Amino acid sequence: MSEEGAAGPGDESRSAQKRRAIVEAAVEVFLRNGYLGTSVDEIAAAASVSKQTVYKHFTDKERLFTEIVLGTIDQVGEPFYEGIDTLPETVNLERDLCELARRLIRIVMQPRLLRLRRLVIGEAGRFPDLGRAYFERGPGRTVESLAPMFGRLAERGLLTMADPLLAAQHFLYLAVSVPLYEATLSGDDEPFTPAELERFADEGVRVFLAAYSRQRPKRSRAKARGVSGPDSKPGHSS
Amino acid sequence: MSEEGAAGPGDESRSAQKRRAIVEAAVEVFLRNGYLGTSVDEIAAAASVSKQTVYKHFTDKERLFTEIVLGTIDQVGEPFYEGIDTLPETVNLERDLCELARRLIRIVMQPRLLRLRRLVIGEAGRFPDLGRAYFERGPGRTVESLAPMFGRLAERGLLTMADPLLAAQHFLYLAVSVPLYEATLSGDDEPFTPAELERFADEGVRVFLAAYSRQRPKRSRAKARGVSGPDSKPGHSS
Repeated sequence: MSEEGAAGPGDESRSAQKRRAIVEAAVEVFLRNGYLGTSVDEIAAAASVSKQTVYKHFTDKERLFTEIVLGTIDQVGEPFYEGIDTLPETVNLERDLCELARRLIRIVMQPRLLRLRRLVIGEAGRFPDLGRAYFERGPGRTVESLAPMFGRLAERGLLTMADPLLAAQHFLYLAVSVPLYEATLSGDDEPFTPAELERFADEGVRVFLAAYSRQRPKRSRAKARGVSGPDSKPGHSS
Repeated sequence: MSEEGAAGPGDESRSAQKRRAIVEAAVEVFLRNGYLGTSVDEIAAAASVSKQTVYKHFTDKERLFTEIVLGTIDQVGEPFYEGIDTLPETVNLERDLCELARRLIRIVMQPRLLRLRRLVIGEAGRFPDLGRAYFERGPGRTVESLAPMFGRLAERGLLTMADPLLAAQHFLYLAVSVPLYEATLSGDDEPFTPAELERFADEGVRVFLAAYSRQRPKRSRAKARGVSGPDSKPGHSS
């Protein structure tokens, strides 16, 4: 047992459990009733804790809302950033970019994130700080993580660009925009099948590579080159 | 004077005036207070008409909200569609696509439309029909208008594509996404200067043409071709 104070591991864990229960209840209630339609009383009841416990953990409704939104975006975004820093060493750029684009589209099209996103946008006039933070920790972070990778791919001669940040923005929005615009506006949480989402991601990468790769990605030509080598000519065998 | 009933041209015009006053007041009140925070009483007071007059024109709050949103999107979108059907006869595709992309970005970044857009997205869970209608009459209509134009440009050999609808989606989202995502989420109604918006539009067109034009757009090569003609060779004069 810890000797560092009254709160031992058991208490710590009970407190953490309550906190998690509040967060989970609050997400449900906010998503169902909107920000204005939600009361701390309701969240406390849904989490089976007292109102005082909610206030102890989160100060007020606005703070709770902010923590939930940013916590969710950090959590769902994590799989995108895992291993992203190995991209510059790729041996198959098109394949790896398609894999990244598919990851992005899977993340942003999660029904729970779509609903949270609509809620944040709807409240962006009232809570510009939250909207700004959502932008920075969502698309902003994605773009800022990708830009230096694209810069290193340009140094390797695989990509060519004047502005890596703009290239990263184009990559992100080519990957996700077609389904994301429709889902965000229509209120439909699953407007596309996983196969359709993958096609949107791959087609976005195709457009991206046409603009930013040193050579246009011609599958057949690349294959032929792979077989005979860049300097050999047809008929010149042995 | 008309003999077709009690409502002569004078009455008609007074009725139309009242309707316009209601619409203008309602846009302001909805944008300020959100959908749930707005009452028909408040709109009637802001328009200086009776509550009964509001109901006579719009049945209920939901109908009024829907008419305002769709009326606004039709109205602000109109400049985009003017003359769009001459695009397939273009003599300078890059210039005309940049002009279209700039028009799009100017329209979608209007502060009033941004605010209405956030409101519709925030209510898309409650009013999926409205969200769906907004999507169809906004980005949906844009894409469906562009797709057949791109198809005809492909017939002329200026563009190349397997799926004109997807090409139109890529065009739209390349043109507007960088500033529109940021403005929608951040709650900032004017996050970019007009010059920055034009650059985003032009860079989007550059990427689009890299993927969809028969030749990659090399400004210098295109200029040289414009001077000497496609069939003449250097040194072959007269």
